[in-house]
Amino acid sequence: MSAHIAVDVGGTRLRAACYREDSLEPVRIEKTKTQGGDQPALEKLSSLIRDIWPEDEDVEAIGIATPGPTNPFEGVVYTAPNIEGWKDLHITSWFEEHFGVPVLVGNDANLAALGEWQYGAGKGHHHLLYMTVSTGIGTGIIANDQLLLGVRGLAAELGHVTVDPNGPVCGCGQRGHLEALASGPSIAHWVEQEIARGGSSSLPAGRTLTAKEIATAAHAGDELSKQALERAGMYIGMALVDFVHTFNPSILIIGGGVSQSGGLLMDPIRACLKDKVISPHYLDDLTLTHPAFGDDAGLIGALALARSHHKD
Amino acid sequence: MSAHIAVDVGGTRLRAACYREDSLEPVRIEKTKTQGGDQPALEKLSSLIRDIWPEDEDVEAIGIATPGPTNPFEGVVYTAPNIEGWKDLHITSWFEEHFGVPVLVGNDANLAALGEWQYGAGKGHHHLLYMTVSTGIGTGIIANDQLLLGVRGLAAELGHVTVDPNGPVCGCGQRGHLEALASGPSIAHWVEQEIARGGSSSLPAGRTLTAKEIATAAHAGDELSKQALERAGMYIGMALVDFVHTFNPSILIIGGGVSQSGGLLMDPIRACLKDKVISPHYLDDLTLTHPAFGDDAGLIGALALARSHHKD
Repeated sequence: MSAHIAVDVGGTRLRAACYREDSLEPVRIEKTKTQGGDQPALEKLSSLIRDIWPEDEDVEAIGIATPGPTNPFEGVVYTAPNIEGWKDLHITSWFEEHFGVPVLVGNDANLAALGEWQYGAGKGHHHLLYMTVSTGIGTGIIANDQLLLGVRGLAAELGHVTVDPNGPVCGCGQRGHLEALASGPSIAHWVEQEIARGGSSSLPAGRTLTAKEIATAAHAGDELSKQALERAGMYIGMALVDFVHTFNPSILIIGGGVSQSGGLLMDPIRACLKDKVISPHYLDDLTLTHPAFGDDAGLIGALALARSHHKD
Repeated sequence: MSAHIAVDVGGTRLRAACYREDSLEPVRIEKTKTQGGDQPALEKLSSLIRDIWPEDEDVEAIGIATPGPTNPFEGVVYTAPNIEGWKDLHITSWFEEHFGVPVLVGNDANLAALGEWQYGAGKGHHHLLYMTVSTGIGTGIIANDQLLLGVRGLAAELGHVTVDPNGPVCGCGQRGHLEALASGPSIAHWVEQEIARGGSSSLPAGRTLTAKEIATAAHAGDELSKQALERAGMYIGMALVDFVHTFNPSILIIGGGVSQSGGLLMDPIRACLKDKVISPHYLDDLTLTHPAFGDDAGLIGALALARSHHKD
């Protein structure tokens, strides 16, 4: 038997897991915090990989999901938010030297799309869009049975598409991006601002809120929180209409914590798609659904990437 | 020797041309007006094809470029603006029955991208975006050496991506699309409105203007016309930034009559790309250029499509 190792690098958590052929259940999985301690993140990852390395099986390849812009062809992480020192990091060669097996790397949202397509909600589709709405908005595209990567692997950064040129400034520094309008922190920030302006809400004024608090308040009947989720859903819906015109996919997979807010978020998305496509044929075969793998999207994606490696 | 036939269907002009292997110079080419006369467009096209049919060579395949949303997999033109009766038209089976050779069809902007990639400005690139800015804004994408088509061939309708949700209504009925902000008629309409509001210009008030008049006036120093082209360039640039984040291409090919307005249009495009990409790596390998085939883009694209047909 042979095995593959999947590694998920997050801003808060690092995970490594070992999988036998044909299984999505890890034989062994270990995790640790990204921040804190004396070890740099690369060393922590090496420890995790050593911990889960199988005793009786050959490791065919290691797949790594990274949270920032990454060049999968050269195995370079350009930057990784919240991870000190990860700049132009040659991550595949580093791990290949340490472990002596092929190492592949990809952006986590791209790999989540790959995982959903191979093993999850997108099985059997040839044209797929995956979006996770969470602290940020990450996306991955399968076009004609291939992961859309572009010349340096920087394609499918749809969280940074401009939805409203007069909108708020995004974490990246540009204005009006989808992420600046509909990510968890953006939703929370909008509610904070509305409360500061005197808007009525069951939520407290004067402190930082979370999207989760807002979803809870919305479901308890708070009108401002409802409005915040509907507004985010409308922006996501507007962006998805653009992406449907761009990719003509047969499935949209919307995940991430914010997507669990239910109809308040999803109804405006459905309404936008129905009202704003330029031809009803875009909707003929279009499925709108949630991912099969929630928190494990990056890990399963890294596994799909590792398994895509073919021996020379 | 064998030959291929390329057919370009436009709202104003129909063309058919016959090409020998390995040549981009037609052996014979014929054209006629789309509108007027007693014959419907399909009959006119059949006559053109008969006129250019080679006497001494076998025709391997016919490629057809159509101006509206088209399903290349089923050979169906969903609609074609300005051509009466073209709705859900099974165009490939119609011509296959008439001529007894394989017939392939595609949207003209998609095929123009294919033609530029195979024979023109995009040769050797693996990730390409083609845009024509004219009466409308049409686009075609090559992603990873494949034409981006989506599940029904409706992908790459980037003229109908929303650039400003508060912008003017588009010909398609939706609001704020790139085409509604930066196509030739949209540029002209903006100038007409500004003049009607009392804006100073060398152009006359109270009549319909053309983008060509505006380009001429701009080059003669008319400030309002300059502003109109710069404004369109800015919107095209903003959209291109989104598309660069979406596709991470290595080449942007901008064609169409409006793109010949020179620096007034192209400078804001270059400035947007420089100022608004979220990582400088998007620009590392990016070429911004004009197409090799102007008016012949659709025809050369239809030829590329016909030549892509492989005998079973």
